Amino acid sequence: MIAKTPTPPYYAVIFTSIGAQLDQDYQETSARMEELAQKEPGFLGLESARSKVGLTVSYWDSLDSIKHWKMNVEHELAREKGRSSWYQSFGIRISKVERDYFFEN
Amino acid sequence: MIAKTPTPPYYAVIFTSIGAQLDQDYQETSARMEELAQKEPGFLGLESARSKVGLTVSYWDSLDSIKHWKMNVEHELAREKGRSSWYQSFGIRISKVERDYFFEN
Repeated sequence: MIAKTPTPPYYAVIFTSIGAQLDQDYQETSARMEELAQKEPGFLGLESARSKVGLTVSYWDSLDSIKHWKMNVEHELAREKGRSSWYQSFGIRISKVERDYFFEN
Repeated sequence: MIAKTPTPPYYAVIFTSIGAQLDQDYQETSARMEELAQKEPGFLGLESARSKVGLTVSYWDSLDSIKHWKMNVEHELAREKGRSSWYQSFGIRISKVERDYFFEN
């Protein structure tokens, strides 16, 4: 559940959202997007949680892979629905992971 | 609740955790750490959510600010408690935000 990412550098897309109407259509589309992302070239992993805000961090091998996923047609349609229906607001941050550290008991 | 960060570049610390025993001491320390982080030089904001995993992303102006916060004594003690009691496992990723995009309805 903690993504098994390779040695840095790699990329993280941090998606933070506040929901307006996170209905069943949202839940289904969300699961579908996760399934699709996993098939994308350069996808490295995904972590997601929701409390007052939703946070989803996906990991990628390059900016090109992120761009390729952004252009996926189903993903484009989902983002449109996100803007028109599901989200009150959101932020997307594209970042380059320079260092990481993992701990396990 | 979506952090108001400045124009990139800036830094994001992505903390992903799986809890073992997230008791009241954890809740209090967690709130205290958030309060302390906000007083640190170079702190830009924080976003947090918990489902099966916990995700906390804090934003900073520089690697030096991140290092300074890491050396805070109360924070060091909290991390020790995290490793010995609260968490089953966690990952920390230090990343440089290169681009961002925000949407609001």
